Amino acid sequence: MTPAFERLQQQLKQLPGVGYRSAERMALHLLVGKPDALPVLIGALEEASRSVRRCSRCGSLAESELCAICADERRDHRIVCVVEHVPDLVAVERSGAYRGCYHVLHGKLSPIHGVGPGDINLAGLLVRVQAGEIRELILALSNDVEGEATCHYLTQHLPPDGAVKVTRIGFGLPSGGGVLYADSVTLKSALDARRDYA
Amino acid sequence: MTPAFERLQQQLKQLPGVGYRSAERMALHLLVGKPDALPVLIGALEEASRSVRRCSRCGSLAESELCAICADERRDHRIVCVVEHVPDLVAVERSGAYRGCYHVLHGKLSPIHGVGPGDINLAGLLVRVQAGEIRELILALSNDVEGEATCHYLTQHLPPDGAVKVTRIGFGLPSGGGVLYADSVTLKSALDARRDYA
Repeated sequence: MTPAFERLQQQLKQLPGVGYRSAERMALHLLVGKPDALPVLIGALEEASRSVRRCSRCGSLAESELCAICADERRDHRIVCVVEHVPDLVAVERSGAYRGCYHVLHGKLSPIHGVGPGDINLAGLLVRVQAGEIRELILALSNDVEGEATCHYLTQHLPPDGAVKVTRIGFGLPSGGGVLYADSVTLKSALDARRDYA
Repeated sequence: MTPAFERLQQQLKQLPGVGYRSAERMALHLLVGKPDALPVLIGALEEASRSVRRCSRCGSLAESELCAICADERRDHRIVCVVEHVPDLVAVERSGAYRGCYHVLHGKLSPIHGVGPGDINLAGLLVRVQAGEIRELILALSNDVEGEATCHYLTQHLPPDGAVKVTRIGFGLPSGGGVLYADSVTLKSALDARRDYA
């Protein structure tokens, strides 16, 4: 179409799940179909860019010093679920199965990719643990070598007095998943995680 | 997450093909995953909003008086393909089967929805025809009552000297489509459009 149109399409294509055709359709929607939506979208992007920052306690998204979860008195501040990324937190929240707080590492340890303890939000978590209010850390990190390494590092650096209970979320067959369709690593996890069935 | 995050998600959800989950994923991508992409996207939206306008001749998207197609000497300016919307033009261009020019009506006649000849870009087309340079109008309007009404209105308002040949694109089975899977209206079009097969 036009150079500015193509630059816009190029930028929209960078969004997750958006291909060449969808980006074209979005750009046409914004420039031809609903031109009134364009300044509103720009405004929302600018406002989010300006006002959204990291929670100083847990590292999630916030608009003030603390995020809505850290500032919520009704949440259980003695239980902290450690996740790799903000979308993981969103996924746990969506499950509705958790009423504690979070800590977002913004990554996992990966020596092979040059990601060490100083590159992720680990120090902040150790500071929170040392403050002494946390009773349980639930490690909701991925079921892979790097997730395992991160869990290992964390347990090695916690106070050795055992005041903090450390758990890791369960691995195995996903809900609705059958053995036939599970990959071998999942099946290995599921076998390792077998429980007495009474 | 946060109010500004949710307003951004709400705006992204307005884009075609974007649901609640994709909008969340996009907002997280822009605010957490690739924050550098956010000002670039805002810039591209602002630039497109500022510089993209309608071609004064055909009504397509342009960044100067004429769009790239109307300004292109190598295109055949005596043949004009009349389409309803800019995405239709994009689709015809994508086929690579056409080297003439276009006219975008930005709609079709629809008395039932209160869309009359003054509400779409019909006057501009009649002016172009009266200028006398057009030899053929290809009506690439939809295969429905409103497309038919628009074609009818157009032919009634062309100069009666027959200097302009008017054609309508073919209707029938789409490429790769079998009779079994075609709906009845398509089959009726296909039967009406039957040709001698030698």
